[in-house]
Amino acid sequence: MRNQQKHAAMLAITMLLVLSGCCRKDHNELLVIKEQGSFTVGGTVIQNSGSYDATQFDNFKPYPEGQTYHGDHAYVFYQIPDHARPLPLVFLHGAGQSSKTWETTADGREGFQNIFLRKGFSTYLVDQPRRGKAGRSTGTSTLEPIADEQMWYEIFRIGIWPNYHQGVQFPKDKESLENFFRQMTPNTGAFDQEVVSNSMSALFDKTGPGILITHSQGGLPGWITGIKNQHVKAIVAYEPGSYPFPEGELPEPISGRTGVLSGVEVSTDDFMKLTQIPIVMYFGDYIPEEVTHELGAENWRTRLTLGRLFVEAVNRHGGDATLVELPKIGIYGNTHFLMSDLNNIEIADLLSAWMKEKRLD
Amino acid sequence: MRNQQKHAAMLAITMLLVLSGCCRKDHNELLVIKEQGSFTVGGTVIQNSGSYDATQFDNFKPYPEGQTYHGDHAYVFYQIPDHARPLPLVFLHGAGQSSKTWETTADGREGFQNIFLRKGFSTYLVDQPRRGKAGRSTGTSTLEPIADEQMWYEIFRIGIWPNYHQGVQFPKDKESLENFFRQMTPNTGAFDQEVVSNSMSALFDKTGPGILITHSQGGLPGWITGIKNQHVKAIVAYEPGSYPFPEGELPEPISGRTGVLSGVEVSTDDFMKLTQIPIVMYFGDYIPEEVTHELGAENWRTRLTLGRLFVEAVNRHGGDATLVELPKIGIYGNTHFLMSDLNNIEIADLLSAWMKEKRLD
Repeated sequence: MRNQQKHAAMLAITMLLVLSGCCRKDHNELLVIKEQGSFTVGGTVIQNSGSYDATQFDNFKPYPEGQTYHGDHAYVFYQIPDHARPLPLVFLHGAGQSSKTWETTADGREGFQNIFLRKGFSTYLVDQPRRGKAGRSTGTSTLEPIADEQMWYEIFRIGIWPNYHQGVQFPKDKESLENFFRQMTPNTGAFDQEVVSNSMSALFDKTGPGILITHSQGGLPGWITGIKNQHVKAIVAYEPGSYPFPEGELPEPISGRTGVLSGVEVSTDDFMKLTQIPIVMYFGDYIPEEVTHELGAENWRTRLTLGRLFVEAVNRHGGDATLVELPKIGIYGNTHFLMSDLNNIEIADLLSAWMKEKRLD
Repeated sequence: MRNQQKHAAMLAITMLLVLSGCCRKDHNELLVIKEQGSFTVGGTVIQNSGSYDATQFDNFKPYPEGQTYHGDHAYVFYQIPDHARPLPLVFLHGAGQSSKTWETTADGREGFQNIFLRKGFSTYLVDQPRRGKAGRSTGTSTLEPIADEQMWYEIFRIGIWPNYHQGVQFPKDKESLENFFRQMTPNTGAFDQEVVSNSMSALFDKTGPGILITHSQGGLPGWITGIKNQHVKAIVAYEPGSYPFPEGELPEPISGRTGVLSGVEVSTDDFMKLTQIPIVMYFGDYIPEEVTHELGAENWRTRLTLGRLFVEAVNRHGGDATLVELPKIGIYGNTHFLMSDLNNIEIADLLSAWMKEKRLD
């Protein structure tokens, strides 16, 4: 074939792939939704003393006397598909994120929200208290536009800035990275594990029995929610940030380049509640055993190390906890955001298989 | 009937009503969604000088040198129903609110998101820059939990605290009012009409031709979006906060109990763009003609008065603007949140009829 012909053939193939929407989207099938909506749940009320007096109004300047302020609730968007499986999935995001974590990926593919709706699960996507659409906080906070994205790029194990990790399951076009950065949204009050787990427990009071799926910083309030509410029938944690341990069994703190990591001590009675439900944790790639100078490797080496001890503790006390280190089962290239990585359908299928095995589906 | 029997009968009727879900929900029909997802759009980037150097990392303290910060984008959640009508509806919320405005109402009924999906429209729900899930702002902001809900209760014309307006289309149970308060979420940076309308225009670049629906403070950036982007094929404004006027035609400022309201002067060329598309505005109840001492009545008396002058200006220049004052067509009891009031299906049907008349559906 002459070069010109070759070129024309290649162009035709490329156009066909583009026109057929190859590889970009996977929503050929319709989503059939029986019910969808949103609500807030949990939270507290500040009631100021005195009597409300509208004559104090002066050009929208504060006059809090006798007024109320509702805050520290979570915001939830839910969808119930037709013929839903019995246990809904409740999704809690991590640090600096919102429910966007589980929606469309940075490169426009479907996230866990759609993937699991298609698998027949009801989904409840949470903005935790003091984040996103649940922004009313009972605490004070100063927000500043501090440039920090190259740090997060490394902490989230996309690569060593400006390079990508070899074989990384993250889209390498500029637009996807920008989209990824823009899905961050700030705390509107200090992160407070107790406030978050209280609202999550209130949510499970509303949903009834369900499966809690957490990411990163959502891990610790997730475990505590499992302790607080017996409607939590299983916990799935993607790279959780920290862990509870029973009284007297707290491991030595683990030091790394990004800080010193300690578990959280809870009563043995409370810890035992986590032995009554199946638990699975997933960790991605680029987490070495040895100490390095890399921020992402270090941040997750410490958390993976403590995670192994947590799983041991749960199982030592008669529980059913599984730790899946993806590279050890032949799945490579995952960042900290496993649920939106290029292989997120494979990651979702792993979870499906686990839920099937535990008869949760 | 003996008292005991009466009681048992009443209980049975109550149980039947509860079990049948009477009057609470109206989603018997399935929602069939062809595509749904979320994205961010618009915004800017702060690029700090210098080179990024990970060795500067010290326990998550800021080290912005050489780093970037993406902010001031909008966040959008969209749903495209099967066999969608050609023009999508793009929804922009008002002050202190998020896209929650258009979702489930405070008492659990369906909002405009579901109502218009059922009518066959694609829906795009926006969190404007510096709000909700679009929280990364290029400005600095201090957030404080200032009790202000009784003020908003009055500004939003629910009643005169603690009383409800007579005949108000707002649910009178305590839980609904609490839910309503909790749907507020703060600015994470100063409100900036230019920043909001830039991101909205970027959104219309993405959606193509569509209909823009605004509420309250979203009104002004909505008009400016219509000037900036020719894909805006119609504007529907629920109780807009302010209005543009052509050079030299700015009305005298209008004084009221809640402040002095001025329009915004734009070039005549720009203003003329608003005469090329159909426009409709809706105002609810409890807005008197005369000056009073009531916060809600005053806040919207001034904005309705200026709105009448805006509609006159558009039509004087050859445009097609309609102002609907609901009590004048026999619809009573509407608060500032017409889209979530008890009669929101009637309010939605009004819009459907207008879109049909203008051949927008």
